[in-house]
Amino acid sequence: MPCGTKGAVKTLTPDELKTLNCEILLSNTYHLMLRPGGDFLKSVGGLHKWMAWDRPILTDSGGFQVFSLATLRKITDEGVTFQSHIDGSTHHLTPEKSIELQEQIGADIIMAFDECPPGGCDYDYAEKSMKRTHDWAKRSLKAKKRTDQALFGIIQGGIYKDLRTESAKFISDLNLPGIAIGGVAVGEPKPYMQEVLETTCPLLPKDRPRYLMGIGEPSDIVMAVSQGIDMFDCVLPTRLARHGSFWTHETGRETITASKYTSGTKPIEENCNCYTCKNFVTSYLRHLIIEKEILGHRLLTIHNLHFLLNLMGEIKEAIGKNEFQKVFKKYALIQ
Amino acid sequence: MPCGTKGAVKTLTPDELKTLNCEILLSNTYHLMLRPGGDFLKSVGGLHKWMAWDRPILTDSGGFQVFSLATLRKITDEGVTFQSHIDGSTHHLTPEKSIELQEQIGADIIMAFDECPPGGCDYDYAEKSMKRTHDWAKRSLKAKKRTDQALFGIIQGGIYKDLRTESAKFISDLNLPGIAIGGVAVGEPKPYMQEVLETTCPLLPKDRPRYLMGIGEPSDIVMAVSQGIDMFDCVLPTRLARHGSFWTHETGRETITASKYTSGTKPIEENCNCYTCKNFVTSYLRHLIIEKEILGHRLLTIHNLHFLLNLMGEIKEAIGKNEFQKVFKKYALIQ
Repeated sequence: MPCGTKGAVKTLTPDELKTLNCEILLSNTYHLMLRPGGDFLKSVGGLHKWMAWDRPILTDSGGFQVFSLATLRKITDEGVTFQSHIDGSTHHLTPEKSIELQEQIGADIIMAFDECPPGGCDYDYAEKSMKRTHDWAKRSLKAKKRTDQALFGIIQGGIYKDLRTESAKFISDLNLPGIAIGGVAVGEPKPYMQEVLETTCPLLPKDRPRYLMGIGEPSDIVMAVSQGIDMFDCVLPTRLARHGSFWTHETGRETITASKYTSGTKPIEENCNCYTCKNFVTSYLRHLIIEKEILGHRLLTIHNLHFLLNLMGEIKEAIGKNEFQKVFKKYALIQ
Repeated sequence: MPCGTKGAVKTLTPDELKTLNCEILLSNTYHLMLRPGGDFLKSVGGLHKWMAWDRPILTDSGGFQVFSLATLRKITDEGVTFQSHIDGSTHHLTPEKSIELQEQIGADIIMAFDECPPGGCDYDYAEKSMKRTHDWAKRSLKAKKRTDQALFGIIQGGIYKDLRTESAKFISDLNLPGIAIGGVAVGEPKPYMQEVLETTCPLLPKDRPRYLMGIGEPSDIVMAVSQGIDMFDCVLPTRLARHGSFWTHETGRETITASKYTSGTKPIEENCNCYTCKNFVTSYLRHLIIEKEILGHRLLTIHNLHFLLNLMGEIKEAIGKNEFQKVFKKYALIQ
């Protein structure tokens, strides 16, 4: 899922996202609650209509951003009080409020409100936070009124196997239409991600989609799929593009401002089908980025999203043919 | 002609420009000579191929930017020495060098190298500068080697009728395939623009296109067309968009951040056929601009270019029907 944090995937139109075969995108409740606000979005018929996107949307619960962006947080079992990162105004978010907001926004998949502790937090904090997340998941489910939205629960528990096991069982028992794994891209050392998945995934119901939150490096995606994950979201393709970076299948992550591209007369990848590679050579893309021309940011965004959405397509096809290991190897070293 | 100053019309792809019925765009020799350079552009097959634009391009001579952007200029009859606004490096531009650069860039229409004096300059300076421009026009013509490019001459002469008359005759006598009028958007009081056109246009050959350089406000365009002008270029549609501004037929120039658009549930113009108006309401566009989402800049650029290119279409059609006065009145107050 490409990220349309504030109701737009950076630089792109809905039409371009469709051309990229984007089937669903993510938007952030935290940002949308601050501007333009849930009441407003409800009044204009929801986010789909407002941003002219008629395919599925998933909204997160706002929890992660409250913990990563907002300041002066006060967390209690009831909910979180925080100050907006925009203007310092005070806001309050609870499971009930998060669900209300997500119902106003009108996404197709909505997320239970969770507490996402920092990656390296100690056992006691991870346990306390997990129990709070479980309580909030139950309250989120209870608060839900709309019947046309799928609520996913979120597994937490930090880097601790027994907590992850407990959380996986608890969230699975809620019998929700989908299950997410949170807290794996929040500063913990990388090897823990695979450990968490190895612990968690075997405990999850086989007939529900599994969503690994905030993950987007190609190597992490194939590793996670090998553990049974189905869905991902990440700002990486759009963020890399903003910094002039992109992926290639042969050499992994590259940066267009490198001097080797100064006179480049070939596309980023000659056999790539994206609009960027079909039309533009690297020396031109480099020129645009150096000149701070927005078109450069846009064209790299298109290539990066194509790369990642195409990877997901390759994975699906390979699994159908029982050839996933080929795809795994192809992407295992691309960050 | 939308401006693709550095080889890209700000925020847009060539495909979008075609959808907007853009028939020709302008690019700036001054910017392209500094980056990526004429030799480079020649080596990659010219600007059309490099920027993936297969319709006509016009390049200016570099003169105007040398006088408006570069620093530490030294002007002699031979040419201009100046320092790059990017890195302070010293460059030299003469009629011969400008034509060589424009042949390397490979535009379809190229411009004679001229001196563009400030709008309010005194008679003596305007006369001296005009004579130099005439000499440079002859040298530009002589320096021209390619036979597949049309060279336009440029009329100067400041705000002085006798100088404009002399210049119009001189440039017309060169028997070039097109004639431009320069020095009318460089700080002189507005009424002078119409005066200059009234003096100049009757003296120009009827069978050659006339190009008024740097003009783009709708009211100026219809006034200039009423005097016999055919071609325009201006950064206004893209620049206005960057600042969140746009045109409407009913109320002229508007700014999307105005509070009246906070809850807007209609497009900028309900009967507008541009992609922006067909898909998005003003509250969403306002949100994007306030959130500094590039998509907002892009969508307003699309509307503004559509507005101006559509105006040119309306003018052509109305002239064919002998109904130009209707179009004149419709746009006479829109700045």
